[in-house]
Amino acid sequence: MDYRGIFQDAVDQLHAEKRYRVFANLERMVGKFPRAVYRSGGTAREVTVWCSNDYLGMGQNDMVIDALCTAAGKMGSGAGGTRNISGTNHPLVELELELADLHGKEAALVFTSGFISNEASISTIARLLPNCLILSDELNHSSMIEGVKRSGSEKKIFRHNDLDHLEELLRAADPQRAKLIVFESVYSMDGDIAPIEAIADLADKYNAMTYIDEVHAVGMYGSRGGGITDRDGLSDRIDIIEGTLAKAFGALGGYITGSRAVIDAVRSYAPGFIFTTALPPAIAAAATASIRHLKTSQDERTAHQRQAQATKEILSSAGFPVMPSETHIVPLLVGDPELCKMASDRLLDVHGIYIQPINYPTVPRGTERLRITPSPFHDDQLIGELCSALTEVWNTLGIPFATGSDEGTVKSDRIVKLTVSKAGG
Amino acid sequence: MDYRGIFQDAVDQLHAEKRYRVFANLERMVGKFPRAVYRSGGTAREVTVWCSNDYLGMGQNDMVIDALCTAAGKMGSGAGGTRNISGTNHPLVELELELADLHGKEAALVFTSGFISNEASISTIARLLPNCLILSDELNHSSMIEGVKRSGSEKKIFRHNDLDHLEELLRAADPQRAKLIVFESVYSMDGDIAPIEAIADLADKYNAMTYIDEVHAVGMYGSRGGGITDRDGLSDRIDIIEGTLAKAFGALGGYITGSRAVIDAVRSYAPGFIFTTALPPAIAAAATASIRHLKTSQDERTAHQRQAQATKEILSSAGFPVMPSETHIVPLLVGDPELCKMASDRLLDVHGIYIQPINYPTVPRGTERLRITPSPFHDDQLIGELCSALTEVWNTLGIPFATGSDEGTVKSDRIVKLTVSKAGG
Ligand SMILES: Cc1ncc(COP(=O)(O)O)c(C=O)c1O
Ligand SMILES: Cc1ncc(COP(=O)(O)O)c(C=O)c1O
Repeated sequence: MDYRGIFQDAVDQLHAEKRYRVFANLERMVGKFPRAVYRSGGTAREVTVWCSNDYLGMGQNDMVIDALCTAAGKMGSGAGGTRNISGTNHPLVELELELADLHGKEAALVFTSGFISNEASISTIARLLPNCLILSDELNHSSMIEGVKRSGSEKKIFRHNDLDHLEELLRAADPQRAKLIVFESVYSMDGDIAPIEAIADLADKYNAMTYIDEVHAVGMYGSRGGGITDRDGLSDRIDIIEGTLAKAFGALGGYITGSRAVIDAVRSYAPGFIFTTALPPAIAAAATASIRHLKTSQDERTAHQRQAQATKEILSSAGFPVMPSETHIVPLLVGDPELCKMASDRLLDVHGIYIQPINYPTVPRGTERLRITPSPFHDDQLIGELCSALTEVWNTLGIPFATGSDEGTVKSDRIVKLTVSKAGG
Repeated sequence: MDYRGIFQDAVDQLHAEKRYRVFANLERMVGKFPRAVYRSGGTAREVTVWCSNDYLGMGQNDMVIDALCTAAGKMGSGAGGTRNISGTNHPLVELELELADLHGKEAALVFTSGFISNEASISTIARLLPNCLILSDELNHSSMIEGVKRSGSEKKIFRHNDLDHLEELLRAADPQRAKLIVFESVYSMDGDIAPIEAIADLADKYNAMTYIDEVHAVGMYGSRGGGITDRDGLSDRIDIIEGTLAKAFGALGGYITGSRAVIDAVRSYAPGFIFTTALPPAIAAAATASIRHLKTSQDERTAHQRQAQATKEILSSAGFPVMPSETHIVPLLVGDPELCKMASDRLLDVHGIYIQPINYPTVPRGTERLRITPSPFHDDQLIGELCSALTEVWNTLGIPFATGSDEGTVKSDRIVKLTVSKAGG
């Protein structure tokens, strides 16, 4: 048995398929976001990051960093234990109260990541429900898929955001059977939004539980930053709202909120919650500061939407294949893994602009893209520079511009019918 | 379908079995470890924590906290993305180099927790090996069990640290088949150590891969803090060494180290690594500072072993049922979940000493215990106070003292034959 050879082959296969990933070594600079130092082959230089999920730039917010350092100075660098064994630090208790309030729920539970919050919660909830049937959107994130798989429950996949298909599956199931509908609010690779109210209506009609992932919406939507359910006044229509502290809130960790009973059950039964060291007090304090700030301040959200809209408009006018997105996410279709990687490399090498290529399996083959995430700190000048750089790259590499533009052809069905399999990595 | 009722019942069952967990709300105090503020029912008071897994107190180390705050001040509070999408921050790259060096391996990969490092790595490695057979110690940690389950591979459980049984299973398997032996070095609930060299010998003989969890040993054993494999010069005999940054190193996160090929394969294929936000630069910088310090300083390790030994001796002399432990872990047998909880409550209420009761499922029923973890900061006076407090509690509650002592009876087979099912929560 040649073990090393097997692992080497697995990696070589990725090279052959042009989807071997090289991570960019970046050092962000507080006060200068979205600028960062990029290190490669012994050299270091400044670049502009256009693909961060620190969507609002809260990671460089003074109050957030102060909260982090103050807590670390007073309470130390780690939690020192699992939640049950001395790790439940005071800032973490406060953070859970804050999150329950954010979503108008009875209780909240914090995990070390959004990934583990989905995996542990979905699998535990489904396991506690006898003979549970899971109904899962086909484009759900990898962490949700892992939770569904780990539950061992029967699952039915409904076509992305397709209410008719979901209803068909609900209708076909035994009315007495426990059902759990799992879906996202904002799908992060395309930027589209689920029909949350209609899904809640179906859940009521067929007596199903609902579990929503608001990872790409919390902090950014709703007058208090409670996500799309907050914006649309639907928080009380959804049983479990899941979110992350690592994107718009600029810290680390994930959470669920819901009724006291379901939170207490997950708290008591989920291995991925129980058997792991708690989040450090410093990280909890930073997250709380960020959430509190975004509960009242609208400035970040307003600027975020404005700059995202401006980016879309400028790139669209310049003829780029901007994929339709209802949100702050600006995907640019390339449609080929090698071209996508080359575009990303050229943006970095020639223009000092960093946008990671998004290839299979994060998105389906043929829909490879550059996923652009403007923040409040990507000002109009930076957007202009981005547009010029993209123009040079598109022309040099011969990447198709949008249909209707003179400069190339791209099948419009590719742009409109976008599907992602496992978002976010 | 009464969903709320089902979750409520699940929680009620724990109450009925006397194993409903209440988390203590603690605020540790830098400069005063192991003292912490304990909050309950609107009041706050200082207590001494005797059950932290910040084993060496590195969580209050000035250099570690400085590294954390300096990085946060310069680079912000979060990573801002997954490893692939702008999240590979410079301190994280340095941390991985440091960890590879610590264990004398070609490469290392950092995860957001030790839990997810085990789950993601074991499941991915086993899935990449065609028709892999996993051989797993019966007392492996929950996170390893999750990894084994998620792999979908066939598994054989060998009796705890039982070389004959392991060999029997290896011999029975097809010699051509891929095999992965997964085990821990220090088992954290009992404090015993695996026969690492003999397991490596068996792995060689039967051409199996080896995966060791050194979570409760890294930082604490070996002249550079590389764990038991470092202490015993066995690092190169084990294929994959896994560890945590959240216990002796005082921060957060987990990792694996191994050959370049296996690390690159896990990096490229493990959902739990790929689809989640990277560890913040501040946490990575704190962990690196801690690891570097413990690579050269022996003071913490020396003091740790000395105080652990002193605690064992003093409690044993006083007639307490100290369970045999080869390491820094000092388990005190109670043998009943309710008594265990009562002892813990009384220690806290009357004596201001916090030791979490360890009940099923963390340990098997009948072996409920107080698990004491002395650090370098638990000085002789604190040990004396602990002994007095325990004496009062043992007498008041009528908990059996060790066999051979006048004060009570406890079956010695209970003390000697200890088994744990899912450690650490
Ligand atoms: C939809 C979705 N859910 C969950 C996660 C995981 O969250 P976290 O990064 O906090 O682990 C991600 C991405 O990282 C995501 O895109
Ligand atoms: C043996 C063992 N492995 C792994 C873990 C998980 O490590 P972490 O706390 O970093 O998630 C733990 C406990 O937390 C453990 O006891």
